[in-house]
Amino acid sequence: MTRQELFEQIKIKQSFLCVGLDTDLNKIPSHLQKVADPIFEFNKQIIDQTADFAVAYKPNIAFYEALGPKGWESLQKTLDYIPKNIFSIADAKRGDIGNTSGLYAKAFFETMDFDSITVAPYMGIDSVSPFLSYENKWVILLALTSNEGSLDFQFSELKNGKPVYQEVLEKSSKWGNPDNMMYVVGATRGEKIGEVRKIVPEHFFLVPGVGAQGGSLEEVAKYGMNSRCGLLVNSSRGIIYAGKGTDFGTEARKEAKKLQGEMEVLLNQYCY
Amino acid sequence: MTRQELFEQIKIKQSFLCVGLDTDLNKIPSHLQKVADPIFEFNKQIIDQTADFAVAYKPNIAFYEALGPKGWESLQKTLDYIPKNIFSIADAKRGDIGNTSGLYAKAFFETMDFDSITVAPYMGIDSVSPFLSYENKWVILLALTSNEGSLDFQFSELKNGKPVYQEVLEKSSKWGNPDNMMYVVGATRGEKIGEVRKIVPEHFFLVPGVGAQGGSLEEVAKYGMNSRCGLLVNSSRGIIYAGKGTDFGTEARKEAKKLQGEMEVLLNQYCY
Repeated sequence: MTRQELFEQIKIKQSFLCVGLDTDLNKIPSHLQKVADPIFEFNKQIIDQTADFAVAYKPNIAFYEALGPKGWESLQKTLDYIPKNIFSIADAKRGDIGNTSGLYAKAFFETMDFDSITVAPYMGIDSVSPFLSYENKWVILLALTSNEGSLDFQFSELKNGKPVYQEVLEKSSKWGNPDNMMYVVGATRGEKIGEVRKIVPEHFFLVPGVGAQGGSLEEVAKYGMNSRCGLLVNSSRGIIYAGKGTDFGTEARKEAKKLQGEMEVLLNQYCY
Repeated sequence: MTRQELFEQIKIKQSFLCVGLDTDLNKIPSHLQKVADPIFEFNKQIIDQTADFAVAYKPNIAFYEALGPKGWESLQKTLDYIPKNIFSIADAKRGDIGNTSGLYAKAFFETMDFDSITVAPYMGIDSVSPFLSYENKWVILLALTSNEGSLDFQFSELKNGKPVYQEVLEKSSKWGNPDNMMYVVGATRGEKIGEVRKIVPEHFFLVPGVGAQGGSLEEVAKYGMNSRCGLLVNSSRGIIYAGKGTDFGTEARKEAKKLQGEMEVLLNQYCY
């Protein structure tokens, strides 16, 4: 999917919602446990109910990988079921030396046909560039995460006065461009998103941590939006586990619709 | 596997060789292409021929992941075939927020039963600690890699005068201990390994980059060895693709034996 196409979807749906498919066999309703592929059946119903309000779906690969080969089959079926006009994100946080990253790119862009994959920056340019060689595919690079451990290295101050995450943004933004790279930017610190926006004004940000992880959507939009929205804000548990019984689909729909409504207001306030 | 058991295997075999199973369908001999599972059949014969000389096997997970669910089945069969007294390494370079890292740990330590997994440090403590909660399992954390991109962030100088990789070593060594953590330390810069050894004197290092990637085994041993060896040195392509035809197994055996012979000399020179 191109940046233009993504922006058009955002305009059509008045939404920059990404639904995180962190689908856990222990958390899906009991009536689904009896079907042949409970993970896929759950995802299918979540997608049916939320596709009107979501511009992206983000399966968290660990949840599928933990189930062995069967999990990968559920993932493939889920990906095939995501409508083609909705952006798909493999939240895999891969990254290795060049030829190995090339194989991860093959896994997620050829064997599977994801639009994008999250990538870790520690190993530098050759761990990222193989993903950038695919047309209309995207790298979503970890820049500033919102977990506890983000304080360990991402904020370490360099001799040049910059924190490590800033060095990651400045260097990596030259490896690709706003048409094939996005950044993971955590939502727990609103003003930090503003600082990142100044460094990379054009790139899309994938923002985890709104909802269950505690960030404020209003702050994210205020500090992070650019003239083409430039945001995909993820919610996983808050949507997919909104209902615990046979109503899980309609409850997920309500939550997604609610977030879309808030996003519509923010788009009109900060973007158009 | 415990550190004591690993060290005993090193003493018994007089070797610190890790064989990298970077098994590529396009590179394995044509006579194997017809069997039901060429990847597993190739690995099986490589293991049969090299188990006398290797103390560790390291499947590079990208090679299996690129093949979809079938690849994961080949990986599982390969892992099951590795003798229990040989250390197994999932070279996966995973790392995510706490609960997601917990699922990656489940994937590699429960769904599969690897002894260890390589992990990326960028997201900090909660991305690493879930792997450390398993008894007799190991995290092998990326510290200093030997690829081109290692220069992008790992060597950036911090305000305190230390390079980023040193901060990674110093902080992360407090999250675990030498009985459940190792470090990936690249071999292309011999004297750098000596610097890392001073920071973490007791930890094992997994050293890629000897052979095809160009490091010198002599330098690695001279600068990196401690009194309990403290090294696992990997060779992938140099061993598994030593022969291109029906002789690939015996050619791999010759290469592994040759490396073991060199390692025996170095163990007696620098360790005992």
